[in-house]
Amino acid sequence: MSSDAPVAQCGGTVLFAGCRRYRRHTAPHPVTQRRDKTLFTPGPLTTSATVKAAMQRDLGSRDSEFIGIVKDIRTRLLACAGVQMDAGYEVVLLQGSGTYGVEAVITTAVPRQGKLLVMVNGAYGARIVKMAQVHGIDHRAETLAEDRAFSANDVVRWLAADKLITHVAVVHSETTTGLMNPIEEIGAATAQQGRSLIVDAMSSFGGVEIDLEAVHADWLVSSSNKCIEGVPGFAFVIAKNSALVAAEGQARTLSLDVVAQWRGLENSGQFRFTPPTHAILAFHQALLELEQEGGVKGRAARYRDNNRVLREGMQRLGFHVYLPASVQGHIITSFHYPDDRAFRFDDFYARLSQRGHVIYPGKLTQAACFRVGNIGRIGRPEIEALLAAAKAVLADMGVKLAPVGVDR
Amino acid sequence: MSSDAPVAQCGGTVLFAGCRRYRRHTAPHPVTQRRDKTLFTPGPLTTSATVKAAMQRDLGSRDSEFIGIVKDIRTRLLACAGVQMDAGYEVVLLQGSGTYGVEAVITTAVPRQGKLLVMVNGAYGARIVKMAQVHGIDHRAETLAEDRAFSANDVVRWLAADKLITHVAVVHSETTTGLMNPIEEIGAATAQQGRSLIVDAMSSFGGVEIDLEAVHADWLVSSSNKCIEGVPGFAFVIAKNSALVAAEGQARTLSLDVVAQWRGLENSGQFRFTPPTHAILAFHQALLELEQEGGVKGRAARYRDNNRVLREGMQRLGFHVYLPASVQGHIITSFHYPDDRAFRFDDFYARLSQRGHVIYPGKLTQAACFRVGNIGRIGRPEIEALLAAAKAVLADMGVKLAPVGVDR
Repeated sequence: MSSDAPVAQCGGTVLFAGCRRYRRHTAPHPVTQRRDKTLFTPGPLTTSATVKAAMQRDLGSRDSEFIGIVKDIRTRLLACAGVQMDAGYEVVLLQGSGTYGVEAVITTAVPRQGKLLVMVNGAYGARIVKMAQVHGIDHRAETLAEDRAFSANDVVRWLAADKLITHVAVVHSETTTGLMNPIEEIGAATAQQGRSLIVDAMSSFGGVEIDLEAVHADWLVSSSNKCIEGVPGFAFVIAKNSALVAAEGQARTLSLDVVAQWRGLENSGQFRFTPPTHAILAFHQALLELEQEGGVKGRAARYRDNNRVLREGMQRLGFHVYLPASVQGHIITSFHYPDDRAFRFDDFYARLSQRGHVIYPGKLTQAACFRVGNIGRIGRPEIEALLAAAKAVLADMGVKLAPVGVDR
Repeated sequence: MSSDAPVAQCGGTVLFAGCRRYRRHTAPHPVTQRRDKTLFTPGPLTTSATVKAAMQRDLGSRDSEFIGIVKDIRTRLLACAGVQMDAGYEVVLLQGSGTYGVEAVITTAVPRQGKLLVMVNGAYGARIVKMAQVHGIDHRAETLAEDRAFSANDVVRWLAADKLITHVAVVHSETTTGLMNPIEEIGAATAQQGRSLIVDAMSSFGGVEIDLEAVHADWLVSSSNKCIEGVPGFAFVIAKNSALVAAEGQARTLSLDVVAQWRGLENSGQFRFTPPTHAILAFHQALLELEQEGGVKGRAARYRDNNRVLREGMQRLGFHVYLPASVQGHIITSFHYPDDRAFRFDDFYARLSQRGHVIYPGKLTQAACFRVGNIGRIGRPEIEALLAAAKAVLADMGVKLAPVGVDR
């Protein structure tokens, strides 16, 4: 079949023989794809053209080139977690979304006689409780308001009060609000009490410096389409070798068995079941670009700058930040709906979208807020363009706000 | 960030500012990606350049354009199953590999008091048994040799003998060998006995004409990277509305709950958890190209031709086909290792791969065979190139075979 050999290329449009009827679906030129709206969401994100270009290949999932790429990804992810190759940690890639990865870890790590403490201060903590319920895993949920972070003291108190607890689950960056739980102190307290820590680092890993050994986490989960800046398609787990070995045979499903997945990758370099080959190629390219940016440290610096420019700019426009500065992370920010009858969020969202800026639709469970993410292949120019658009949209809507004191 | 705006483009190489160190990873020109080896595997497949080009975008998963694409995909898949919009069937897309989709259906469809009959004549039937074991689902496995298909009589006998059985699971195209089980007669027998049928149509759907109503299947599962010719990233389930409604609350996991996933797609048009947006864009383009080829009928004709050219050509080279013609499907073909001491499969595979042809590594459980797939964006020229390469490789290896009588 030669029907996909290009027959002409000019001015950013590639034409394919036999496919002219679908011209608007054919290869966007690297420039024309910039017409896509900028995503200020917690993922999928705006990714680089080179990350997307890495998907223009079809590799066999059992062929040596692909196996080599998977191996390189697993090695590079260890470095992102700040641990050496020989520090006793393993990397397991798992098909599906980030939630699949969390469910896989919860249902693999906690034994039948175990008990899970779940710290809930947002929707993602609550989702772990739901998982424990669905699988009949004994658990204790401890809930805080969505604008309050957990502390080591909380953990010590709960673990002392309930000796049955074997595992502790905490969300690092609560995507619900943008709150950052202090996983180092929580991890130290958990380890001191001899329990095992599970960290949901979905929206932080790669964009927030994490020293996995200092965190004392046995299990950490994140996904391909967050701060590594790949595309969605799989989750990854970084786990202590000893924790994996101890969890052998505990999994409650076939597909989400982290230990069996790890054994497969170790034994043959292959996935047990068909992997998302294109998303994996994109992720490999994304890891090379992360390294080029100075690793997690360099990326965190850009995200911190993005977040500062965003928050200060939104405050100047008159929006109040939801979280206290002490718990605000640099990944996503929640803003209160302004106290003006002319403001309707759906309208604000749609007008921003029409101007090419997609913020996060939907609101918090506990407060009338909206959210703006600042991760992905975006920087100051994109944040400033969003702020200019927000200013224009407020004017169009007839919303008049007074600037809020900037909270540094 | 303007670092991904191309600064130069010439001769098929696109250069990106700030990314020169990784030039070999940058955007392959639509022509240069043709250097990839041709995949004669059961997926991931060689896909069209336009399918891959559809992934050169970043769409928000909750934005209206993406929601519209998901809706269009669900409608088009119904047509591929030969059913009308109002025939009472629903389409559910589910993140993960095809196996995730099968596990999702098994663990959603079969109630706690139910019992599953699994018909096993290959690795994928055996995998369903494994799922039932992992989840503690009462089941009965009936096994045939890998070169024998199930019949309606088998089903009638087993269902009459075991009144506890509520559900029957069968694999349509057993990717293990290429065998095709006759799902219409199996489905009619199952329906006549008042039981519910689950069809694993992983490697057949889209490439083999299926009339879902004639099959009497309550549940059918396939995946994005098979005969629709998309890229891997998700599975899809076509289920009777009544079966979905009856299965409410039965799921044994959070992520693989087909009913909850369906409710999410129906209520908001959105996935419950982050979908593989890029794989979904590719799949949408793949569905447009399927329509352009004349739908499933047109595609089946190409695959049948591919398969005939492949089998006849291999027989002329001296390879014996493993399956009797009566059960041989037109998706994948198993060939016996030739009876020549100079033939070593690993060597044969590697030499073909070096020449740009990737066949399926690994062998059957019950016989010394290898497999060649003929699906994906390949046609006669690619099959003939593979046959020429196989001939040359046999000569290089010093394997001398006599032509086998062509089995039409």
